[in-house]
Amino acid sequence: MDRDAQKRTAAEAAAAMIEDGMVVGLGTGSTARFAIEALIRRVRDGLRIRAIPTSERSAAQARAGGIPLTTFAEHGRLDLTIDGADAIETGSLNLIKGLGGALLREKIVAAASDRLVIVADGRKLVDRLGGTTPVPVEVVPFGWETTNERLRRLGSEPALRRGGDGQPFRTDGGNLILDCAFGPIDDPVRLDGAIGQTIGVVETGIFIGMAYLALVADETNVQQLTRRPA
Amino acid sequence: MDRDAQKRTAAEAAAAMIEDGMVVGLGTGSTARFAIEALIRRVRDGLRIRAIPTSERSAAQARAGGIPLTTFAEHGRLDLTIDGADAIETGSLNLIKGLGGALLREKIVAAASDRLVIVADGRKLVDRLGGTTPVPVEVVPFGWETTNERLRRLGSEPALRRGGDGQPFRTDGGNLILDCAFGPIDDPVRLDGAIGQTIGVVETGIFIGMAYLALVADETNVQQLTRRPA
Repeated sequence: MDRDAQKRTAAEAAAAMIEDGMVVGLGTGSTARFAIEALIRRVRDGLRIRAIPTSERSAAQARAGGIPLTTFAEHGRLDLTIDGADAIETGSLNLIKGLGGALLREKIVAAASDRLVIVADGRKLVDRLGGTTPVPVEVVPFGWETTNERLRRLGSEPALRRGGDGQPFRTDGGNLILDCAFGPIDDPVRLDGAIGQTIGVVETGIFIGMAYLALVADETNVQQLTRRPA
Repeated sequence: MDRDAQKRTAAEAAAAMIEDGMVVGLGTGSTARFAIEALIRRVRDGLRIRAIPTSERSAAQARAGGIPLTTFAEHGRLDLTIDGADAIETGSLNLIKGLGGALLREKIVAAASDRLVIVADGRKLVDRLGGTTPVPVEVVPFGWETTNERLRRLGSEPALRRGGDGQPFRTDGGNLILDCAFGPIDDPVRLDGAIGQTIGVVETGIFIGMAYLALVADETNVQQLTRRPA
């Protein structure tokens, strides 16, 4: 299987877990997109769900496909959320997320979900976070230069993310993203805490202890990885 | 002195500390307003400064009065910031701020300042934070109901702040404020950390170890309070 086929296979395995009556969180990114596609087909076949999307993009896809959307004003808890990840640590299932730009809403939806199921191709699985991907950090635009300096002092090389037009990328919430290269991360819990305490930071792309299951497809099949207790 | 006269007296004492050539942070609120007024008079008398305001409101006041404004793109550090506070703990000079709605920018400016000088009337001085004022917490609008629930579980009664029109109050950054009544706070450092780690929270109104000096006016004079080492 090529990478797109891997993503699709993992995504369809997750979509098959959704049951009638569930409130479902919809992730953002190329793999989550395949999961939403699969859910649209299931809804056309009669599945009754309500969904809370993690980005305007995923909301548009779901709406166009006929998935009924809801909000936190109506549903305080979600039954299950399907989302992608940029890196998944084997064992802990700690994650780095946010290359798609939606880390804040993804974290809020994940925190409100009984179960977070991560879907990914095999290249996302790593022994240690940080070696292959920087940590995306969402920061407020006001004084971002000073926040950048504080994140540098935590031991990273931050880079202001830019969009295709060369302008600073803006999240759905109007914030900026600093992609912070830390190298391999020994203690993600402590680093997540230190970044989260940094003034000007809205949220970090490190997700600790949130994933319940990861469905990771490689060339031949889908692995089901559960979290090993810390 | 009545309360307005106390605020004005404290504010003028702080404005007198500003020297030629300084980059100055301008706070937000009724007492900071008096300080900006005093600075406008000093600038008209020849004082040369540049200022970074903590709100659109303070920016408008400074601009109208002829104080040259600058940004963090030009100045990474500020020499001195003058700001108010809703509650000042004697000894530690830990603060609660944010009833004026600008806590996030106030904290970013304070963190980038060599010295933060707090100006207040005598009623703001307390033995323990939290007894007289709730802790304002800036949260992202998306899923704020779930953030509210997490803050309730930390032991507070959160109330969504509303504006004069009855609509939810929006900060300059487009976020919401939850005023979280915790009662008297035994360990503000720990509480600040716990609130800051809460998913959906942008920033808390607890300012730990940031104030260098508090100028507090009562009926008869201005007290100069410095921070007692913890």
